[in-house]
Amino acid sequence: MVKGARVVPCATFGAVFDGVAKGAAGVIPIENTLAGSVGENLDLLLERDVFIRGELQLRIAHCLIAAKSVKFRDVRRVLSHPVALDQCREFFRRHTGIEAIPAQDTAGAVQQVVKEKARDAAAIAGAAAAKEYGGYILRKNLEDNPQNFTRFLLIGHGKTSAPGANKTSVAFSTRDVSGALFQALGVFAERGINLSRIASRPVRGRPWEYIFFVDFLRGRDAVAQSALQELGDVAGFVKVLGIYKKSD
Amino acid sequence: MVKGARVVPCATFGAVFDGVAKGAAGVIPIENTLAGSVGENLDLLLERDVFIRGELQLRIAHCLIAAKSVKFRDVRRVLSHPVALDQCREFFRRHTGIEAIPAQDTAGAVQQVVKEKARDAAAIAGAAAAKEYGGYILRKNLEDNPQNFTRFLLIGHGKTSAPGANKTSVAFSTRDVSGALFQALGVFAERGINLSRIASRPVRGRPWEYIFFVDFLRGRDAVAQSALQELGDVAGFVKVLGIYKKSD
Repeated sequence: MVKGARVVPCATFGAVFDGVAKGAAGVIPIENTLAGSVGENLDLLLERDVFIRGELQLRIAHCLIAAKSVKFRDVRRVLSHPVALDQCREFFRRHTGIEAIPAQDTAGAVQQVVKEKARDAAAIAGAAAAKEYGGYILRKNLEDNPQNFTRFLLIGHGKTSAPGANKTSVAFSTRDVSGALFQALGVFAERGINLSRIASRPVRGRPWEYIFFVDFLRGRDAVAQSALQELGDVAGFVKVLGIYKKSD
Repeated sequence: MVKGARVVPCATFGAVFDGVAKGAAGVIPIENTLAGSVGENLDLLLERDVFIRGELQLRIAHCLIAAKSVKFRDVRRVLSHPVALDQCREFFRRHTGIEAIPAQDTAGAVQQVVKEKARDAAAIAGAAAAKEYGGYILRKNLEDNPQNFTRFLLIGHGKTSAPGANKTSVAFSTRDVSGALFQALGVFAERGINLSRIASRPVRGRPWEYIFFVDFLRGRDAVAQSALQELGDVAGFVKVLGIYKKSD
């Protein structure tokens, strides 16, 4: 955090992008190592006039949290954000008598079960939410796999990139999936540029057409520039989403 | 539907796959033209011993449904399944005073707002749910774009494929994203095989490694066989998920 910066929580991802349009910096989750891409944020990066400034990875640990003196064996319903539930599929597979209930956010789910003093309900959230809302931790590390990380992007307005930037995120469309995607990836392969990720998203309004999101490990240099130029010839359109420093 | 077949609704996607393991046929959503991939079902196709038998596409239309005599201007909360909410982002962007609340399923959301006789709440679901639970339709076509289709897969046990099959779904891993994915796609490109889709999913337990899901337009023929064989040499592993007839 920047000293003196004011932190403003946003109810939706769209609201974060709205804030960035007005000059704020924003932080959005973009992918999780168990649940996959956050599709809405890929779509928003494409639609809105923002630029990626940096990335960070956080280890995500989930706890099962309930009101005071609730017993694990009495729990029948577990509330949490759908993405958190998606990271704990094995827990629900093992405990078939417990129902997963989607909620708006993880902390709100804890607040709800504590406030209602529900005897048969619990919430999935980080340990901090138990402390904040007076919940009790029934189980720790509910996530399917300890290798549970979420990658966040720092976004801002205006196409600046930090000195030492060594990673570029780009979105592009192809005329068709087959030959054209192969050609597009060839632009990187023939220059020995490493891709760290490729994801696809549907084009809204054009069923079964896709936009591709590629991260590659080069900053603002001549090789990357020539690759992006050639990509422009091969792809339908190209949007550079950001040039930034790769997180360790 | 097969005449005489018994239809069994399942609470989770995992339960559909469990049923298929016991000999039933299953139907699962795999992608939506607004919301994108259904990641959990891609993961389950990879994990479980099932085979795709066919596909179908349905146009999805969403209604805003409430209890009797609720007025649109009084609605502050709208409940629905997260994927349905994700198809109606523009509605929530336009109506900033209305909050999107995730629910377990669309029909259940209608049942809840009707039963509670909530004056400030509504649900998003298909028109049939309004009829079934005695709800009233306040607005129609809430989806962001009329080009809203969901592609469903019919899955079964045992690797059979229908005569006239002209589409294959395959999953494969690559040693690294960059050169290896390019090489893998080259297997198809050099044979003039059209891909209709490529999606990526994280490998659980191996952060920032990915599995690729490719659909290509060939059935059980010599060209497809040789492509799959060469893919086996290039990729880390290959799993054929099904060989079936493309829907129109």
